[in-house]
Amino acid sequence: MGLIVQKFGGTSVGDMERIKNAALRVIEEKNRGNDVVVVVSAMGKTTDGLVDLAYQASAKPSKREMDMLLTTGEQITISLLTMVLLESGYNAVSMTGWQAGIETEDIHGNARITNINSDRVQQNLRDNRIVVVAGFQGMAESREITTLGRGGSDTTAVALAAALNADRCDIYTDVNGVYTSDPRYVKNARKLSSVAYDEMLELANLGAGVLHPRAVEFAKNHGVPLVVRSSMEKQEGTMIEEEVSMETGLIVRGVAFEEEIIRMTVIGLENEITGLSSIFTTLAKNHINVDIIIQSKTETGSINLSFSIKRESLEDAVEVLQNNRGQLGFSSIEHESGLAKVSIVGSGMISNPGVAAQMFEALANNQIPIKMVSTSEIKVSAVVDEAKMLKAAEVLHTEFNLDKAQEPQKVSAK
Amino acid sequence: MGLIVQKFGGTSVGDMERIKNAALRVIEEKNRGNDVVVVVSAMGKTTDGLVDLAYQASAKPSKREMDMLLTTGEQITISLLTMVLLESGYNAVSMTGWQAGIETEDIHGNARITNINSDRVQQNLRDNRIVVVAGFQGMAESREITTLGRGGSDTTAVALAAALNADRCDIYTDVNGVYTSDPRYVKNARKLSSVAYDEMLELANLGAGVLHPRAVEFAKNHGVPLVVRSSMEKQEGTMIEEEVSMETGLIVRGVAFEEEIIRMTVIGLENEITGLSSIFTTLAKNHINVDIIIQSKTETGSINLSFSIKRESLEDAVEVLQNNRGQLGFSSIEHESGLAKVSIVGSGMISNPGVAAQMFEALANNQIPIKMVSTSEIKVSAVVDEAKMLKAAEVLHTEFNLDKAQEPQKVSAK
Repeated sequence: MGLIVQKFGGTSVGDMERIKNAALRVIEEKNRGNDVVVVVSAMGKTTDGLVDLAYQASAKPSKREMDMLLTTGEQITISLLTMVLLESGYNAVSMTGWQAGIETEDIHGNARITNINSDRVQQNLRDNRIVVVAGFQGMAESREITTLGRGGSDTTAVALAAALNADRCDIYTDVNGVYTSDPRYVKNARKLSSVAYDEMLELANLGAGVLHPRAVEFAKNHGVPLVVRSSMEKQEGTMIEEEVSMETGLIVRGVAFEEEIIRMTVIGLENEITGLSSIFTTLAKNHINVDIIIQSKTETGSINLSFSIKRESLEDAVEVLQNNRGQLGFSSIEHESGLAKVSIVGSGMISNPGVAAQMFEALANNQIPIKMVSTSEIKVSAVVDEAKMLKAAEVLHTEFNLDKAQEPQKVSAK
Repeated sequence: MGLIVQKFGGTSVGDMERIKNAALRVIEEKNRGNDVVVVVSAMGKTTDGLVDLAYQASAKPSKREMDMLLTTGEQITISLLTMVLLESGYNAVSMTGWQAGIETEDIHGNARITNINSDRVQQNLRDNRIVVVAGFQGMAESREITTLGRGGSDTTAVALAAALNADRCDIYTDVNGVYTSDPRYVKNARKLSSVAYDEMLELANLGAGVLHPRAVEFAKNHGVPLVVRSSMEKQEGTMIEEEVSMETGLIVRGVAFEEEIIRMTVIGLENEITGLSSIFTTLAKNHINVDIIIQSKTETGSINLSFSIKRESLEDAVEVLQNNRGQLGFSSIEHESGLAKVSIVGSGMISNPGVAAQMFEALANNQIPIKMVSTSEIKVSAVVDEAKMLKAAEVLHTEFNLDKAQEPQKVSAK
């Protein structure tokens, strides 16, 4: 007998039929003799409808009131799922984020969990109830209702699993697991039976979807075993854990890609010593995430600085830099759009030098010019023309034997 | 400068256009220099949609989970109305029932307010914010989300007005005020400019709609001046207060009527001393409201007991009585349906004997037989055939000069 946390995302509870299907997954786990805590998102359409209403009410809705509005979405799902469980003869109880003791920073729209007071959840588990918790939401010390931002429900599930010392956290979603690459675009992409936290973190950060990096990081820090699996199909999913066997010699475990990348260039940065940090501090303060950074010195001694950002941050980045131009000390900025990022990820790289070189060579052999590069211990990313992104992904997927690699590992999700 | 509590019901916030219209009423009051607390119900359609979902989830949804589900309705309205106010340049903040300190019994579906901790509302008023509170909902000491049942939002508004010592509580609704009778059926019904709490209480209890008796009782007990007015039309409404001028000699202030009344008869009740109280205690314990009661002794010395109940209580009443037949000691029960109740209400009756006789005579002159009768200090009710209910109402409306009575009182709603 163990304790399992299950999380169902917006599409997995998208309508009443799917909520009933999710209830079957919950009941299966309960029937195995486990205690079950379920975390749910809002029904997909509910959120869309609420957002529509908000923009009818205001051209720029207050973040606080958006939290007030959108948190009703999960509250609807928890009550409906609990009704279905009760109707099926199982003892169950729903809890909002604040009832479940999800304590957060006092920030609206993107709060972090600061603490989980799991007393009430635990009391209900002792009373043999299935506990159904609203994901994505919490309460600040000021008794303000807050939301956790993107990937919030994943984070709620993992944080609860950590706080309750759960045996496993199952993320039910609309895909069967984590793939070597996006199967919609890379035809030979295969499902991985297991993947390491760090690999998942890189894959998630690189836009492989499925699981939000915040949730993966939380799971890694607290050693929560995660399984990503389908809510619709009865299949083994992908286990995400600390150590993944390397027996297969799979140096690269996945190829991720992301379009709509912008290369910004700050020209003529005057202060070599403090210029760099000033620029990135200013961008960070304005919530603009910078990815790859390249610095070069011109003949006149001033610095040119290139970095990649997402398309959605472009207007903000330009505005922030222009507004602080005098203080930051540069002559002009430029940007190039129409770019994409392709990355290879695998913890096997650490002990296998030459992986990056092999990647660059494969891209060169296929006439794919590389615009920017960054490397970490388990990842190499290259910025390429958006038009060549999928070709690059296919090339790398084949180059690193992901098309037909065999994997002896099995998900130990019992 | 005063403090006004405004309440907007489900139809007054039924869609975004109406929410914006409600915001205009709020802004008018704020612009007069008053502090404003707004209490809102769920948008009418939202509640219908949620109830539909609940019955898709369960044939008999749990009351606790119904509370969890339905309280999202008001939470949606408060956030949207607050967004509109903010968009209009007014400082405003929304609060759920528990955030506004609405403390209730630990009962689902029909909790009573036990206390209001208005600290947070008052702090926000001091910070010059319009406070928008979710009606109908509260929190029990156990941190369970509760609802107040029918008329819940009216009760929230009046209770907040009492706790905040508000100058007035305005109930915005889809009618212009309180009428001498239901204008949909009684053609000469006229709007009253003022009415006493007790009269309103009787009118409300008699199915005159508009305002829930719990809210009126609360207002009476705490001396909160109430105004019922239209959210759509700019008109003076009806003031509900302690003392209403009697200068006009209006002995009867309103004619109310209610269909679907059942006369139940318990035949052969054995114990004359305790039989009566046992029956009504048993019914009360099972939440069956009994209205008019008539007791008669048969020639054999046993007791026959007739009482009126609402149609919706019939099945429950029959079941409860049959199940306790041995203990209650009676031989059989009968019931008659197809009845209705017509009542005249007015505090002037106290000092005017003969009002009841005048009523009976008027009905008799119009060939309307009376099946049961009850009287109180400010009300006389008669049970008649359902088919004659509207005729009876018309007759009494004319008989007591309500068709053309003039009223010198003015609503002092400034």
